[in-house]
Amino acid sequence: MIDAKVKATNILWHCTQVTHDLRESLLNQKGSTIWMTGLPSSGKSTTAFALEYELVMRGFLAYVLDGDNVRHGLNKDLGFSAQDRAENIRRVAEVAKLFADAGVLVITSFISPYREERDFARRIHKEAGQSFAEIFIDAPLEVCEARDPKGLYAKARRGELKGFTGIDDPYEPPFAPELVCETANYSPPEIASQIMDFLVQAGFLSKDSYSRSSNRTPSMGRK
Amino acid sequence: MIDAKVKATNILWHCTQVTHDLRESLLNQKGSTIWMTGLPSSGKSTTAFALEYELVMRGFLAYVLDGDNVRHGLNKDLGFSAQDRAENIRRVAEVAKLFADAGVLVITSFISPYREERDFARRIHKEAGQSFAEIFIDAPLEVCEARDPKGLYAKARRGELKGFTGIDDPYEPPFAPELVCETANYSPPEIASQIMDFLVQAGFLSKDSYSRSSNRTPSMGRK
Repeated sequence: MIDAKVKATNILWHCTQVTHDLRESLLNQKGSTIWMTGLPSSGKSTTAFALEYELVMRGFLAYVLDGDNVRHGLNKDLGFSAQDRAENIRRVAEVAKLFADAGVLVITSFISPYREERDFARRIHKEAGQSFAEIFIDAPLEVCEARDPKGLYAKARRGELKGFTGIDDPYEPPFAPELVCETANYSPPEIASQIMDFLVQAGFLSKDSYSRSSNRTPSMGRK
Repeated sequence: MIDAKVKATNILWHCTQVTHDLRESLLNQKGSTIWMTGLPSSGKSTTAFALEYELVMRGFLAYVLDGDNVRHGLNKDLGFSAQDRAENIRRVAEVAKLFADAGVLVITSFISPYREERDFARRIHKEAGQSFAEIFIDAPLEVCEARDPKGLYAKARRGELKGFTGIDDPYEPPFAPELVCETANYSPPEIASQIMDFLVQAGFLSKDSYSRSSNRTPSMGRK
């Protein structure tokens, strides 16, 4: 009797997997990773949170992965050696893939200075049939350095901080990002809007649900 | 000019954080972690997928973290030593916390044999103000061993597999789980239903949205 139940159970297991299509129709969006990359202080987090807010206010489910929620939890065992920084980005890529698989529009906000690491993130998403877009948050080094809200550029210039991206560690700009956002020339809401347009054009959000969303508030959402 | 923009940006950053309440009203659910624990072959994955399917079919956003999507990606650098198994569960707990923070009902399906590790998972959720429930997937060892779909118990009995939970490695049953599900006595849909009832009673799903969901299909969802 138990054996029979177990066999039935295994069949059920295979039948009841939730498909991507089902998630997509539930959320009116394609689970996707929006991978921001750029110099320190280029505006990645500002852009990421402005975009997240805009998406959620329109009724879409977006979530930001950044240093604050990843470095202090999942990756708190990692330091800033070259090896640990690579492992940091590897894990972020894998977690982003899980979020995209769940149907979420996940926005990652990490310097991610090396092409190889970003290409790894892209590859694992493509292999899993998931949408991925690399967005270059582009601001000239001198602009980033003038912003320097935490004084890290200054420390790096004084030699008190070693291996700082843009000063004594390279930043490799993307060769072919899906989108380039110039944070020195546009405000965060303007940039969020540029990215929203891209998400619709690229099919991450359907045109229909996006048009309907313009005057939606979350409390008017799915009820 | 650039400086002024940056300052405004920082203000915006703080203003536009998406709150838990906003996510809750968007999704009609409380981002939560449903932590399954139990012996190998006790029915954790079967239960997890039956529950995920039931939730998604009712228009809720659920997602299963299990060996398949975690061990082959995020945790593929980990083996089965005591240290690596602990790190496996630590990372799962941290990733579950991120999913719950995003508003998802995340269901974890891992043996997670040690109380200390499960308590860690609970603690980091509580510290972040997130809902967490430990569900003991309870089946007698002899039932699990009779199921043994991958022949692992048999291997462990023959001594070909070392440190197998339930045979030569301990399983520590929860002292005070939120729910106990007896997979030897109930079918997967029955158990999924028991868990759904618990989720409503515990406030993870609001009574209202749950009642409304009974005749909802995903395509009838938020439009």
